[in-house]
Amino acid sequence: MPLPTPLIEALRATFGADLSLAEAERVAYSYDNSRLHALPDAVVFPTTHAQVEALVRQCREHRVPVIARGRGTNTTGATVPVDGGVVVSFERMNRIIRLDPDNRLAIVEPGVLNGDLQQALKPLGFFWPPDPTSSPWCSIGGNLACNSAGPRTVKYGSPRENTLGLRAVAGTGEGFRAGTYTSKGSTGYDLTRLLIGSEGTLALITEATLKLTPKPTGLRTLRATYRDVSAAAHAVARIMAQPVTPCALEFIDDVALRLAHEHGGDSVPMAGAMLMIEVDGEPETLPSAVEAVSRAARGEGLESLDIAQTAEETQALWSARKALSPAQRTISPNKINEDVVVPVSRLPELVDGVKQLAARHNVLIVSFGHAGNGNLHVNLLPRDDAERERAHACLADLFDLVIRLDGTLSGEHGIGLAKRPFMPLALQASTLDLMRAVKSAFDPDGILNPGKLLP
Amino acid sequence: MPLPTPLIEALRATFGADLSLAEAERVAYSYDNSRLHALPDAVVFPTTHAQVEALVRQCREHRVPVIARGRGTNTTGATVPVDGGVVVSFERMNRIIRLDPDNRLAIVEPGVLNGDLQQALKPLGFFWPPDPTSSPWCSIGGNLACNSAGPRTVKYGSPRENTLGLRAVAGTGEGFRAGTYTSKGSTGYDLTRLLIGSEGTLALITEATLKLTPKPTGLRTLRATYRDVSAAAHAVARIMAQPVTPCALEFIDDVALRLAHEHGGDSVPMAGAMLMIEVDGEPETLPSAVEAVSRAARGEGLESLDIAQTAEETQALWSARKALSPAQRTISPNKINEDVVVPVSRLPELVDGVKQLAARHNVLIVSFGHAGNGNLHVNLLPRDDAERERAHACLADLFDLVIRLDGTLSGEHGIGLAKRPFMPLALQASTLDLMRAVKSAFDPDGILNPGKLLP
Ligand SMILES: Cc1cc2nc3c(=O)[nH]c(=O)nc-3n(C[C@H](O)[C@H](O)[C@H](O)COP(=O)(O)OP(=O)(O)OC[C@H]3O[C@@H](n4cnc5c(N)ncnc54)[C@H](O)[C@@H]3O)c2cc1C
Ligand SMILES: Cc1cc2nc3c(=O)[nH]c(=O)nc-3n(C[C@H](O)[C@H](O)[C@H](O)COP(=O)(O)OP(=O)(O)OC[C@H]3O[C@@H](n4cnc5c(N)ncnc54)[C@H](O)[C@@H]3O)c2cc1C
Repeated sequence: MPLPTPLIEALRATFGADLSLAEAERVAYSYDNSRLHALPDAVVFPTTHAQVEALVRQCREHRVPVIARGRGTNTTGATVPVDGGVVVSFERMNRIIRLDPDNRLAIVEPGVLNGDLQQALKPLGFFWPPDPTSSPWCSIGGNLACNSAGPRTVKYGSPRENTLGLRAVAGTGEGFRAGTYTSKGSTGYDLTRLLIGSEGTLALITEATLKLTPKPTGLRTLRATYRDVSAAAHAVARIMAQPVTPCALEFIDDVALRLAHEHGGDSVPMAGAMLMIEVDGEPETLPSAVEAVSRAARGEGLESLDIAQTAEETQALWSARKALSPAQRTISPNKINEDVVVPVSRLPELVDGVKQLAARHNVLIVSFGHAGNGNLHVNLLPRDDAERERAHACLADLFDLVIRLDGTLSGEHGIGLAKRPFMPLALQASTLDLMRAVKSAFDPDGILNPGKLLP
Repeated sequence: MPLPTPLIEALRATFGADLSLAEAERVAYSYDNSRLHALPDAVVFPTTHAQVEALVRQCREHRVPVIARGRGTNTTGATVPVDGGVVVSFERMNRIIRLDPDNRLAIVEPGVLNGDLQQALKPLGFFWPPDPTSSPWCSIGGNLACNSAGPRTVKYGSPRENTLGLRAVAGTGEGFRAGTYTSKGSTGYDLTRLLIGSEGTLALITEATLKLTPKPTGLRTLRATYRDVSAAAHAVARIMAQPVTPCALEFIDDVALRLAHEHGGDSVPMAGAMLMIEVDGEPETLPSAVEAVSRAARGEGLESLDIAQTAEETQALWSARKALSPAQRTISPNKINEDVVVPVSRLPELVDGVKQLAARHNVLIVSFGHAGNGNLHVNLLPRDDAERERAHACLADLFDLVIRLDGTLSGEHGIGLAKRPFMPLALQASTLDLMRAVKSAFDPDGILNPGKLLP
């Protein structure tokens, strides 16, 4: 269903050359990292907030879907225009408006890449904590819309803990500001956090005021291997129960280690499980921090504990983790990448349960990820079509397991298209009803990213 | 307007002896720390979530207001039943349901006192960061509903950064759960944060899952005095620009110091302004942390810098701050207590501007508070009726000033009844419209705490 001519004219008046109806461009914006796809009717590239307001008003008049897009690196199909409509790519709205270290804040447009912001902050001695591995290629707008996170989240929090305010356009076409320029506030409802993690279904973010954190000047890397996953999981709980919170506490299971070893060679240790641990702080404080964390890492089932003394040694310790992504790709081009999360103390049960599911469904599964948050990347690696079918059947059991362990569907990737059918597993009907009511409050005609997040 | 008889019968069936219609009790629950008051038609004391659901359903049927109440220590009239109705006091719903240090969380009923929770956590080596001065007398439910904070917020955040999930009852009478038991999540809209700071206008909180933080075992207290407020405010900005974030960074202006000196004696220093600074951490890390903060505290206008070595010396350093509350009370029983907040770098302008307002309106004003967050308690101390009138006129100018400095009305006390008329100063019409739409989504008949927060 092509766009109505009056809408096309209105869009052209608003966007000029920044509107594209060309098939090639529409195809380029039809899919994301989920590899799901659907063709949009148009793509626009706003450069101002006012254009975004005009866009939403114009589309609303014709009840045409509006799908926000950062850099399309999400894994859930969150930017796929399943009902057609206009994809709004924020890639040209990418100015860093203000770096304000005195107030520990930065004001940016949504298209700024996470990595570019971190680069700009480095000389000032600050960083913005959310650190997805995709940092060089993903946008702040996408980070906020997915509540994306990474290894550092265990110590420094996710976007919800690191954002002061937003400017945005609701589904009505009305622009608004939420939040403050201050590090604290109690002036009305917290619409800022409500938009964070809403995956473009409530409003389009046009500006963000981010809370900055001073970057500690020292960092130490530790690697611990364990007899089995349960021993490693117990070490995680011990590490999190003492006062020195590491800035990364990553887990890698035996299957993943074997895979990385085959791919990455002998520098990757073979063990029942491995933890990668980083502690940061001012250099004078590091020795005692390393000591405290090492003490907690030791215990029943520890096989080795290495502490890097040089940059090269640090590199070497991370080699297993680094080898993992290419290793997975060689095995399966159709990786199903879940990022379930459970309370830290339930990690042993989760890891065990996943092993049982792998056996029962006869699917290759590797588990690794942000253990300090109980956030495990459970990657199903089907090697042929039959295994792929089995993998999909396995998914429902995986989510079931996670919910039984007091966990939830996603720690950082979000729901999008892929996990939408599982939402009723994770959330009560009454909670979902309230979310639908909130959706209607922001987007009465349901034009913003339809078909995503809410079942 | 008395309650309809069928409602009274329904309430009696639900609450039995935990329903009170007696005048004496209604009077006791008619006011809060704001000293505003209005008589409720009934008071109930739930002990279960199910009772709260029944209550809201029953009241909704008769369109009767429901006003949540913790311990009534708020300063804004947020619990005053301006339209009558039923006050729900959560004081008997005060069980600590679970302390779970392995998962760094605690599950509590809303009536648990902040101080009681901290006591229970102490032996486990954890704490819940929000630390209002009223901690021994205020409830977690009230803390969450106001997004209440305290000195530690500068390092550890407010309830919004320290809450994982909630159970609650919306204005429809539907119970629901929001959030997770995990330290991270990206599964739908963040209703948890939306309820935090909503002052009982969206839902009644019946259970909270709080994020715990390991309690550092060491603490050092520093006191710095400065030639004038501007020198102190610049020191605040320097302290916040370096990597060691203090766990308290409190400011006291010259008027407040003079008052405290008159009341508290010679142990209170006389100066142009004073900073109280605390740094915490593991004992081995404290010397370097104190050194880093001291370095930043030094500079243009510093008059003295004292570092406490013993518990007695720490006590002595805090004497000025401690003398301040009773000193204010002797001067004015009608203190108007504002808690405006601005970006840290605008503090000098705020303090200056407040001095000009005090002169222009001829009102005694003392300023002190959580400088690290830019959150200043601006206390107007009228000594007679005429000065009281002038003080009220001064308020509008104060809020005007704060908004011009990119700040907002309240850092931690909330809006309630008292600051409601000023909301359009702080928030755009489109933002307020969205807040009203959110309110309708949760509370379609407007029965939850009517007349509060939203103008
Ligand atoms: C190699 C790789 C590694 C990854 N590692 C991680 C990781 O460690 N942690 C992690 O959390 N994720 C990770 N991801 C997933 C992904 O990078 C993140 O979700 C990222 O935040 C998406 O950003 P984006 O700019 O690509 O957004 P998109 O994929 O373009 O969009 C994501 C969502 O945000 C919405 N959106 C985008 N911009 C706006 C806006 N301005 N206003 C409103 N809504 C908007 C979209 O509608 C969509 O719902 C990884 C992905 C890849 C490919
Ligand atoms: C001496 C003193 C010092 C103070 N110091 C500070 C300070 O340092 N920092 C600070 O932030 N505040 C401070 N306050 C203000 C006050 O203590 C806080 O706002 C506190 O959080 C209120 O808690 P409460 O239990 O008394 O709540 P109440 O005053 O009873 O209620 C406050 C609000 O919360 C709502 N509410 C209460 N329980 C629930 C529930 N279960 N569900 C939904 N809504 C609910 C009420 O409807 C109301 O809107 C101080 C007050 C005093 C008297």
